[in-house]
Amino acid sequence: MTVSFNQLKNELERVLLQLSFPKTKAAVCAAIFASNSRDGVYSHGLNRFPVFVNLVKEGLVDPHAEPERLATTGNLEQWDGHRGPGMYNATICMDRAIQRAKAGGISCVVLGNSNHWMRGGTYGWQAAEAGCIGICFTNAMAGMPPWGGSVPKLGNNPLVMAVPWKPGPIILDMAMSQFSYGKLQEYQFNEEALPLPGGYDQKGSLTTDPEAIIKSKRALPIGYWKGSGLALLLDIVLTSLTGGSSTADITKSGKEVGLSQCFICIHQPDLHPSLIQEILTFTKGDGGEGGKISYPGENALKRRMKNEKEGIPVNEKIWESVLKM
Amino acid sequence: MTVSFNQLKNELERVLLQLSFPKTKAAVCAAIFASNSRDGVYSHGLNRFPVFVNLVKEGLVDPHAEPERLATTGNLEQWDGHRGPGMYNATICMDRAIQRAKAGGISCVVLGNSNHWMRGGTYGWQAAEAGCIGICFTNAMAGMPPWGGSVPKLGNNPLVMAVPWKPGPIILDMAMSQFSYGKLQEYQFNEEALPLPGGYDQKGSLTTDPEAIIKSKRALPIGYWKGSGLALLLDIVLTSLTGGSSTADITKSGKEVGLSQCFICIHQPDLHPSLIQEILTFTKGDGGEGGKISYPGENALKRRMKNEKEGIPVNEKIWESVLKM
Repeated sequence: MTVSFNQLKNELERVLLQLSFPKTKAAVCAAIFASNSRDGVYSHGLNRFPVFVNLVKEGLVDPHAEPERLATTGNLEQWDGHRGPGMYNATICMDRAIQRAKAGGISCVVLGNSNHWMRGGTYGWQAAEAGCIGICFTNAMAGMPPWGGSVPKLGNNPLVMAVPWKPGPIILDMAMSQFSYGKLQEYQFNEEALPLPGGYDQKGSLTTDPEAIIKSKRALPIGYWKGSGLALLLDIVLTSLTGGSSTADITKSGKEVGLSQCFICIHQPDLHPSLIQEILTFTKGDGGEGGKISYPGENALKRRMKNEKEGIPVNEKIWESVLKM
Repeated sequence: MTVSFNQLKNELERVLLQLSFPKTKAAVCAAIFASNSRDGVYSHGLNRFPVFVNLVKEGLVDPHAEPERLATTGNLEQWDGHRGPGMYNATICMDRAIQRAKAGGISCVVLGNSNHWMRGGTYGWQAAEAGCIGICFTNAMAGMPPWGGSVPKLGNNPLVMAVPWKPGPIILDMAMSQFSYGKLQEYQFNEEALPLPGGYDQKGSLTTDPEAIIKSKRALPIGYWKGSGLALLLDIVLTSLTGGSSTADITKSGKEVGLSQCFICIHQPDLHPSLIQEILTFTKGDGGEGGKISYPGENALKRRMKNEKEGIPVNEKIWESVLKM
């Protein structure tokens, strides 16, 4: 079953308005959920919406909160998200980073006390479509042991890096575990093995069995010790700049709320597109690889165009449940 | 055999002066090579020095070149390295980034037309010791196929992230391949297998045999498609901001010279050290992991302290060759 982008967006917007979201905020949040589904990131689109609705109902996401700037030093700003909707706060902060970068070359907006921003790529697209190089990252509840350990202590802490390009940005949106828990569940549901080892089983051996990893809670960081180190560093940068919650705090609280995020923008009028084209041609090009190499963001764009044409595939059960909200 | 830091530094400085390096530049470069050996990064310390000397003799590194600022937009600056010594240019640019961040919160200095900076961590330490969060990265000659391909098209493109801390910074310095070619050669020399698959053999199977990977030239990116994407993005950001050489250009030229680098600094007087301590305690702490978990930079600091006390181990052949230069 498929629905159109507008159908999906309007339905989600209706539910948010019903939850007493102010008009603009409902529109921004609904558009982000719908865009995520449209771009094929179903786990952070419609499929995540009922979870978000519950967080609002439980009072963990405050629809009336507005993000607030606490301090400014040159082009570095500290903001407080006041536990409002994460994707709304993130949109405001990336917008602010874009404005400041356009005025001063580079800017950094850090946001504490916010909530899950859903798909990090959203804010990378936002920066790139405004003509900026965008770098952003968030922390999260612990779901991965540090290298050398067996108890989850590190968040998946996605890192996004985006560069303006046509027809869509060159954009990397990567979590620090090799496979997210959402992906593991997808493989488990389809009764498939992972294409590569994605974590340890309960005996401590590397495995491609998604179920074994979900049970052991020992997802593997990308590049083993390297991704473990990067996840830690991102959390330390976020916490030290915001003075807000770290993965340690979030994990101890038992709820994935009050997250810390960072939005860096760089603006330079001429980004030398002919040189970028040369890089893409060289990388994808002449090795006779038969089109198997793509740049980050290329497949999401293809998926967007396909879903815009053919409709966005939805999980019927979830869609029905939203229609009844 | 071991030598003291000063012995090592003075000897390297003597050789550089003999190669007509100006006094300050000889001192800066010799100190960086000696520090890299002192911190246990032997591959980019004394062991690399004879290669550097040859590049100078071949005219590929110009000891008389001074880096030059080409353009400024707010806190974003473009510099030209004029093919001078890479570690000297990088030191100047990180110093500039530190100054600008202290004045304006965040800064970015990009450097084109430079040379190999040796160990990226050097500039992360520099930023952190000046009280700044430092992020820097460089491109390199292709040595790794992009995900889906089998021909080397991506550089190892190290990424460095450093946060001020005592007794030494929390600092990640990671190349985009799981094992650098230097590391592979080390395992090969010791006739050891890699602890984890590090690339493909010539039949296209994942292997822990360092020799097979050196032969196939198919080193594995960290996190497979993720590290491949990150290596590409870093090169694109570097090239688009500097207008300088990309990995494609460097690879086509056949010489690893004229590299592009980026130095980002963030300065905020209070980095909330008590929150950083909480993160480290949580991550390393209570899982009964028996001290197997360390933060990035912790082991390099231990090695530095050990080598300062006991002397820096040197490869006798290389040391003798330098003494004779």
